[in-house]
Amino acid sequence: MDSVYQHVLAWRDALHEENLDLSIWRIHRRIGMSGGLFLKALERELGATLTEGQADRLRQSHAKALLGRLDQIRPLPGARELLTTLTSMRVPWAVATSGSEITARPTLALLGIPEGTPVVTRDQVAYAKPNPDLFLAAAERLGVPSGDCFVVGDSIWDLLAAQRAGALGIGLLSGGYGREELEQAGAYRVYEDPAGLLAHLDELGIRAGS
Amino acid sequence: MDSVYQHVLAWRDALHEENLDLSIWRIHRRIGMSGGLFLKALERELGATLTEGQADRLRQSHAKALLGRLDQIRPLPGARELLTTLTSMRVPWAVATSGSEITARPTLALLGIPEGTPVVTRDQVAYAKPNPDLFLAAAERLGVPSGDCFVVGDSIWDLLAAQRAGALGIGLLSGGYGREELEQAGAYRVYEDPAGLLAHLDELGIRAGS
Repeated sequence: MDSVYQHVLAWRDALHEENLDLSIWRIHRRIGMSGGLFLKALERELGATLTEGQADRLRQSHAKALLGRLDQIRPLPGARELLTTLTSMRVPWAVATSGSEITARPTLALLGIPEGTPVVTRDQVAYAKPNPDLFLAAAERLGVPSGDCFVVGDSIWDLLAAQRAGALGIGLLSGGYGREELEQAGAYRVYEDPAGLLAHLDELGIRAGS
Repeated sequence: MDSVYQHVLAWRDALHEENLDLSIWRIHRRIGMSGGLFLKALERELGATLTEGQADRLRQSHAKALLGRLDQIRPLPGARELLTTLTSMRVPWAVATSGSEITARPTLALLGIPEGTPVVTRDQVAYAKPNPDLFLAAAERLGVPSGDCFVVGDSIWDLLAAQRAGALGIGLLSGGYGREELEQAGAYRVYEDPAGLLAHLDELGIRAGS
C-alpha cells in the first residue's frame, strides 16, 4: 500500500496535538518500526520523557488521523497484480504488518486480498519490527520455514526484521528510502515498487509451485 | 525550512485534481528540482503527455495547495541560529530556492531573515536546479566567486547544482534522502539538519570573517 506518507502525517498531527514538534523527516524514518520503539526514539529526539497517558493518546490520535486519511491511500502500482500472479503460480504468500488490526484492516481492504489470506498484525505478536516476530508468525501460518521465505518491504525496519527471521529481504523504493540504505539494511534485491518486483520474479528464482 | 513534505502533498493534491495519480515517493524524489523538469519526469512516469494548460493548472494548484499548508511549515531546528551565527561571524550568506516568489516569500518570512538578505528565487534565473543558475546568481549577489561558496541543501538536486556551480555541497538529511544518496550527488559533508551543521562549522573550515 502507498500509505507511508499518510502515516507520517498522522504521526505529525498526533504529536502536534500533544504540543510535540519533531522534524518530519525524523518521523518518516521511523515508520514501520514498532510503536513502542518509535515512542522511545521520540523521547530521545525530543529530549523528553513521555507519560503512559501521553503515549496512549499519541497512539490513539495517530490511528484516528490515519483513518481520516484512508481516502488518500492507494495500492502501490502492481500490488494487486503481484498477489494475483503469486496465487495463480501457487506460491504461498501472507501479509505481515506492524500496523494494528484497527488501522491495518481498512487499509488492506483497499488491496482486495482474498478471504483466508494469512494476515499477521501487530496485535498478534509480542514485538513488532525490527524484531522478527511478525515474519516468523507469517511463515508459520504459511507452514514453511522462514529461511525459505522472501520478505518484501519498503523500510529498513522490514529488512532488519527479515534478517533476524533468516529470510531474504526484498526492498522497494516506495517507502521513500534510498536504494543504498535498503541494501545496507540487508536487501538482497531492490525494485521500485510491486510492479517492478513482478516484472523481475525470474531474478528471485520464483517458479510456479505445485 | 521543514517544507519538503508539504510540497510533496501539495503536488499530490494538484495531480489528483487533474486525475493524475503518481506514487507519493516518486513525487518526494522530485522536490527541489525545476518545475519544468518535474513535469517532464511526470510525463515519463505517467506515460502521458501533459498539455500546456494542464501544466499551468498543475503549477497553480500546487502553489495554492502549498499556501494552504503554510501553518504547518516550520523552520528546521537550528536554522535561525545558524543564520544569526553566520551573520555575527561576518560570513556572507544568501538564500537560493527553486520555489517561485509566490511560495518562497511567505515560507521565508517564517525564518525571520533580515531585510536586505540576498534571496534568489526561481523567477530570477533562466533555469532552476539541477542547473547551477540559482547558486551562480546567489554568489554574484554576495560578490564572491561560486567556487568559494558552500551550498547547503537537503535534496540531490541541490547537490548536483552545487557541483555544476563549482561550489562545495553540504547535505542535510532533513529532506528525507539517505546519507549515501546525498554523498553520491556530491555532498562534501552531511549533517542531520541546520543544528548539526551549526555544531560542526569547524569541520568546514568556517572562521569569522572581517
